[in-house]
Amino acid sequence: MESIKNRRTIRKYKQDDVPAALLNELLEESFRASTMGNMQLYSVVVTRNAEMKSRLAPAHFNQPMVTSAPVVLTFCADFNRFSKWCEQRKAVPGYNNFISFLNAATDALLVTQNFCTLAEEAGLGICYLGTTIYNPDQIIDLLELPELVVPVATITVGYPDECPEQPDRLPVQGIIHEEKYQDYTPSMIDQIYAYKEALPENKHFVEINHTETLAQIFTDIRYKKADNEFMSEGLKKVLKRQGFDK
Amino acid sequence: MESIKNRRTIRKYKQDDVPAALLNELLEESFRASTMGNMQLYSVVVTRNAEMKSRLAPAHFNQPMVTSAPVVLTFCADFNRFSKWCEQRKAVPGYNNFISFLNAATDALLVTQNFCTLAEEAGLGICYLGTTIYNPDQIIDLLELPELVVPVATITVGYPDECPEQPDRLPVQGIIHEEKYQDYTPSMIDQIYAYKEALPENKHFVEINHTETLAQIFTDIRYKKADNEFMSEGLKKVLKRQGFDK
Repeated sequence: MESIKNRRTIRKYKQDDVPAALLNELLEESFRASTMGNMQLYSVVVTRNAEMKSRLAPAHFNQPMVTSAPVVLTFCADFNRFSKWCEQRKAVPGYNNFISFLNAATDALLVTQNFCTLAEEAGLGICYLGTTIYNPDQIIDLLELPELVVPVATITVGYPDECPEQPDRLPVQGIIHEEKYQDYTPSMIDQIYAYKEALPENKHFVEINHTETLAQIFTDIRYKKADNEFMSEGLKKVLKRQGFDK
Repeated sequence: MESIKNRRTIRKYKQDDVPAALLNELLEESFRASTMGNMQLYSVVVTRNAEMKSRLAPAHFNQPMVTSAPVVLTFCADFNRFSKWCEQRKAVPGYNNFISFLNAATDALLVTQNFCTLAEEAGLGICYLGTTIYNPDQIIDLLELPELVVPVATITVGYPDECPEQPDRLPVQGIIHEEKYQDYTPSMIDQIYAYKEALPENKHFVEINHTETLAQIFTDIRYKKADNEFMSEGLKKVLKRQGFDK
């Protein structure tokens, strides 16, 4: 599929709005994704209001797409709706636990990717914000997410106003394993990362960040151990707060 | 997109093999999905060997697709490759924690759904096996997954030998929230689940299972509280075993 093969993340959008009818149609189609026992364990919160976007932005470290995109979508793992149905039908729900969170998160993420594909095929551009699970507390407060609902992905959506270079990808041989996982030897690691390390933009990154290697940009600047441990604790507290504590 | 709009899960496959070149091409395209900081935190294990399929089957509660499909794909959250690269480049990786597991699982699930879309667009049929996170221990042993690698999704793949009815979906109004999450009132729950409850096949399920409501089939037979709690403990142990324990 050309739209997948040629995809690039879009961070600059035209002023044109995304019609509500088109958005709903794309979301409805995306809900055709596989779902655990056909329970559809997800909800989507649509943000178009400028004030709401400004209030959401800090949770996403003020990445400009949150306020500049016409639409921001927050995909949530949701066992609230299903559990309410159970309770209303003389059935005792047992979904306040970790596996149920992961089942619902899985459902939500499959739908998220399905939506992205459909949106891009319809000529829209998207940006996936990985920040959603870094500050879920703020998002929960702002979107008023009840118990058993946790945000897992945020997508900004709009008509593209840029066509950036396609980012590199690792060679497929470095990712696909036949029959059993073949653990990586040092020379395999060298081969797999050689192209990425040789890219002029990555060499430039190393230079301006005064690191010795590209990997150090990830470990020492972008995705640091201390931050990861801090956010892991935060995320565990959020799962407890939202009732997925068993 | 017609292939998404008309999709159905395929559990019966023709004997025809899925050519390796086609499979690799689809996987390579699927790796175009959004990925956290372009780290590509996933691996895919391809199972074609009949003995390996038989040994994988019990982990998936012996669902027949595992042995009857020409190809079984196990998508894994993988921080092993990336961490090995860091260590080899004088960088200290800090990814043995919960947020890193969820980041890698997210990457892997976006790729999984992308692959499914591409496979279906190419005329293949797929079945998503939610059982992967129920018995990850067995899968880890069999596929020899090292530390910082956890299986999160399994897909069976082959040329369709059936065209089942399309399953129902909840009305979109029950899933999409404008600006803020509107929690469900009892009458909203009644409306959202009315169509599903009225379906002849669901009425039949209730009858043959001797339950009073459809919801009870989920809570008392299919996705029970005790099972969920047991599997939650198992999954937590597996994250610890695989080193995502911080």
